[in-house]
Amino acid sequence: MTSDPSPAHPTAGLRDVVHQRARLGILTVLGETDRADFPYLKALLRLTDGNLGRHIEVLAAEGLVRVTKGYEGRRPRTWVEITRPGRGALAAEMDALKQLVQRYERRHLRPAPPAENGPPS
Amino acid sequence: MTSDPSPAHPTAGLRDVVHQRARLGILTVLGETDRADFPYLKALLRLTDGNLGRHIEVLAAEGLVRVTKGYEGRRPRTWVEITRPGRGALAAEMDALKQLVQRYERRHLRPAPPAENGPPS
Repeated sequence: MTSDPSPAHPTAGLRDVVHQRARLGILTVLGETDRADFPYLKALLRLTDGNLGRHIEVLAAEGLVRVTKGYEGRRPRTWVEITRPGRGALAAEMDALKQLVQRYERRHLRPAPPAENGPPS
Repeated sequence: MTSDPSPAHPTAGLRDVVHQRARLGILTVLGETDRADFPYLKALLRLTDGNLGRHIEVLAAEGLVRVTKGYEGRRPRTWVEITRPGRGALAAEMDALKQLVQRYERRHLRPAPPAENGPPS
């Protein structure tokens, strides 16, 4: 195929801040729970401390998650929760991914071939 | 929710080399066409020259795409095509994304509420 296609490809509309693998993981987990703490996210998403912290900072800077520090008994805890804009951004990403998958399946999954000798009598 | 979840989250299985937005775009486009040239990919995916070149290098280094240079008439052309491992990696990514979307929809889209006064007679 050659140059000059017209409308943008579905992936052109994805937001890197939400699409990036670790951040997509953080947002989908937070979308399912009220809030989560660092050790929970780290274990579930198989991320290192540094990695998780860095990605949460990126999401918080965009207003997609909120970080709160507190205590449970005498133990300090850091909680992360998704914000309303975060829910919106996650919904938009999921919608785009669904379109991408459907487009892929339309073009790659062939319908079953017709029976070789015509329809059964 | 607190620490100690057991199985990894679906996003933990995504490969950054394939999942990254621009590279996912390149692979899905190449999965639909036999081969594509740089200007076509650039326009369709809304990428700069440098960006496109860099992501194609990453994909080629992983053996997921193959770059060939040639001429069309006297005009030099650079073609990119997807390899067999590239098709496999794209299929795995699409499968993972489908699971992620389905999981999201199961947890966020509520079924329609039952009719208020029981089933119609």
